[in-house]
Amino acid sequence: MNTTMLFNLSYGLYIISSMDGERPTGCTANSLMQVTAEPNTVVLSMNHDNHTNECIRKTGKFGVVVLAEDTPPSYIGGFGFRSGKDSDKFDGLEYDMKSGVPIINEGVGYLVFKVIDSFETSTHTIFLGELVDAEEIKGGTPMTYSYYHKVIKGKTPKNAPTYVAEEEVKKEEKDVWVCTVCGYVYDGDEPFEKLPESYKCPVCMQPKSVFKKK
Amino acid sequence: MNTTMLFNLSYGLYIISSMDGERPTGCTANSLMQVTAEPNTVVLSMNHDNHTNECIRKTGKFGVVVLAEDTPPSYIGGFGFRSGKDSDKFDGLEYDMKSGVPIINEGVGYLVFKVIDSFETSTHTIFLGELVDAEEIKGGTPMTYSYYHKVIKGKTPKNAPTYVAEEEVKKEEKDVWVCTVCGYVYDGDEPFEKLPESYKCPVCMQPKSVFKKK
Repeated sequence: MNTTMLFNLSYGLYIISSMDGERPTGCTANSLMQVTAEPNTVVLSMNHDNHTNECIRKTGKFGVVVLAEDTPPSYIGGFGFRSGKDSDKFDGLEYDMKSGVPIINEGVGYLVFKVIDSFETSTHTIFLGELVDAEEIKGGTPMTYSYYHKVIKGKTPKNAPTYVAEEEVKKEEKDVWVCTVCGYVYDGDEPFEKLPESYKCPVCMQPKSVFKKK
Repeated sequence: MNTTMLFNLSYGLYIISSMDGERPTGCTANSLMQVTAEPNTVVLSMNHDNHTNECIRKTGKFGVVVLAEDTPPSYIGGFGFRSGKDSDKFDGLEYDMKSGVPIINEGVGYLVFKVIDSFETSTHTIFLGELVDAEEIKGGTPMTYSYYHKVIKGKTPKNAPTYVAEEEVKKEEKDVWVCTVCGYVYDGDEPFEKLPESYKCPVCMQPKSVFKKK
C-alpha cells in the first residue's frame, strides 16, 4: 500500500482562532471542509494537543481566516509552530473581534462557526460548525496547501492529520539549509552562508542561527 | 453575512466508487479530507440522494480516484451529472477491481477506505473511512476544485455541499452558451454558432443541440 497517495488530496490553508478566556489564540490548519449547504456547515479536524482545540470546546465557536497566496509566510509560521498556551500569537498583529472570535487583518476573508456537534477520535476532535458570520478581508487567491508546500516550501506542523505520512517520504540528500524551528527549507539563489546575519526565516521569523545544514 | 466566502475553502476533485450488488457505480465529489494519521482516516460528505451513498452504506467501503489536471473532463461529466441508479457509469471505461471497489484507469492514484463510522445530517451522510489500499495510477498534478471551475469552467452538481451557495452568485449577462445538462459554459475562440453539428459538450459529452444561449 502506497500511503503517500494521501498527499494527493487537496486542501486550503487557514488560521483557526478562538478565545482563551480574555486572550485571543489560534493555530494554522488545513483540515477544514464544507459538508452541508442547508444550513452551511463545515467539519474541522484538530489535534487534541492543540491548545486551540481546548479553547474551541470551551467557547463553542471558532473563526477561520482563509490565507491568500500573497499572505506573508510569517503568519503561517507565527500561528503554526508554537503553542498558544505559552505565547500570545496575536501579539503585534492587527485584528478585530468578529462574532466573539479574533480575526487578523490579513487573508482573503473570514468565517465564524458555532460548534453544533463534535466527534472524538484517538488523536483528533472533529468539530461540526455552523456558519454564523463571514466577510471578505483583503480578497485575492486562496492559498492551497499544495501551493504552501511547493511554492513557499513550507512544512507540516506535527499535529496536522497529514504529518506522519509526509515525514515518511524520503528527502533528497543535497546541501540544504533547514530552519530547525519550523522546517522551512532555504530556497534562495544566494548561497545560505553568504546571507547577512540579519536574515530571518520567512516562515517563523527566527534568526539565521537556527538554520542547520542537512 | 457574505456566505460566498465559503467558496474560498479549497478542495480536490475525486471519483468516489462503490458496488451496487454486482454492478460498479460511483459519482464525483470534492468533499473529502484526511482527519487523522494514526490510523489514516478521512471524512467524506455525500448527499442522501446520491445512489453511491446507499451503496457505500450497504458495502461498508468506498474507492477514491484522485483526478489529475489532465484527466479528460468527460470523466467528471460522466460520473457527475446523472444517477448511477439508472445508468452504468462504468460502461465503456477501463477499470479494475481493487480491494472490492471499481477503480478506473485514469487519474493520479486511487485509495480504498472501509467505513468505520458515519454521522447523519439533514441532507448528507458523513462517512469516516480508514485507508485499506492505495496505489498510483498515472501520477500527475491533482486537480483542485478551483482548477475545475476556473480552467475547465465546470459547474457543481446539485447534490454537492457547495451547490446552493454557488447558485446564488450573480452571473455576468453576456452572450454565453451553456450546456443545459451539466452547466458547462462554452469558452472556445470559435463563435458557438459556427461549431460543427458533431460538437459535443467536453464535460458531459451531450450533443451541440442541448446548449442554450443565456
